[in-house]
Amino acid sequence: MTQDDLKLERSKLVKLAMELVERKGTEVTRQMLANESQLARSRIEHIFPEEADLFDAIVEDWYAPDIAIMEEVVASELPIQRKFYEFFARRFVREQERFRANPDTFALYLELGQARFEQVRGYIDLADHYLSELVAQAQAEGHFEGLKIDRALSLINQMVVCYTSPQVLMMLDGRLDESKLAQIIDTMFAGLTAQTGSAAGVSNLRLA
Amino acid sequence: MTQDDLKLERSKLVKLAMELVERKGTEVTRQMLANESQLARSRIEHIFPEEADLFDAIVEDWYAPDIAIMEEVVASELPIQRKFYEFFARRFVREQERFRANPDTFALYLELGQARFEQVRGYIDLADHYLSELVAQAQAEGHFEGLKIDRALSLINQMVVCYTSPQVLMMLDGRLDESKLAQIIDTMFAGLTAQTGSAAGVSNLRLA
Repeated sequence: MTQDDLKLERSKLVKLAMELVERKGTEVTRQMLANESQLARSRIEHIFPEEADLFDAIVEDWYAPDIAIMEEVVASELPIQRKFYEFFARRFVREQERFRANPDTFALYLELGQARFEQVRGYIDLADHYLSELVAQAQAEGHFEGLKIDRALSLINQMVVCYTSPQVLMMLDGRLDESKLAQIIDTMFAGLTAQTGSAAGVSNLRLA
Repeated sequence: MTQDDLKLERSKLVKLAMELVERKGTEVTRQMLANESQLARSRIEHIFPEEADLFDAIVEDWYAPDIAIMEEVVASELPIQRKFYEFFARRFVREQERFRANPDTFALYLELGQARFEQVRGYIDLADHYLSELVAQAQAEGHFEGLKIDRALSLINQMVVCYTSPQVLMMLDGRLDESKLAQIIDTMFAGLTAQTGSAAGVSNLRLA
């Protein structure tokens, strides 16, 4: 069996595992996958040596299109504001479609991801890595003046959390749309700098 | 028994019910409250005619300080940016303290609130009502130019959702702080208008 055959078999098993997740509404184990695929348990274990490897493969499959989107946007020749927008909007639209297609399965994946957060963490870090590149590029063009990259990253992530967090999507779905996301990004580009405005005022001064 | 006595007794029972929620980690019924308080079931039913009345009273108690904060801030003489900041920051600080004091109880209240969302809805609407007043005042001073109030309300709520949503607080606690909230509000005041920026670009134009 060649490496390509192995990859193909692995990929088919991941698809089958995801169908099982949807059908049964629970996490899928290698034993369940062996029963369902009618492959020998030893074959399954050859492909997924540990139980966690099956889960990792599902996570990888879930995030692969998001990674492709981010890579494509970062490498594109779009103006920087448009890059920011596409970076968030394309993933949001995809996520919203997945949620609306089957809210229960979406909620289940979320729950599984939260229970095994370490394996999901890498993808969140990767999104931060790509966003940092966009922030650096924006700063090179004079935006987000004076802000450290990590600070800009954190503020931007917080301002668009409605469009990146699957948890928030589940809560606010009907109120979210791409035109609002575009306005939030326009607001950032027009207003986010290190300059202190008058919101916080003198520190610790509260109402008289 | 005077109205004041009745009010006092009701308030004591609500406190007891909240202690029970924390101790038992479940929703509290009138029967549990009767057992614990050693009052006759009929007495409890006089004060809380329906099961939902007990839950309503707990919700009322939970939100009372938030309402006081909002009323105080709206009525204050602070400059408008400071009002926005205090409107969100004071409630956030209080919520974060409650969460950190007992994350499990906090999660339980959230779960109970979600299961009976209709009773919680009124408080969210009230927060939107007060925020609308602040938006109108800001617009009278030339901020958020050209935006309809409902649109401004929605965009602002989305940009600060990290600081208002207990669900998001539970996810991101360590990354949230008042100085970031202040910067987000400064960003809004500097950049949020009806003017279309270049984020969305030509509609439906995607990467070539």
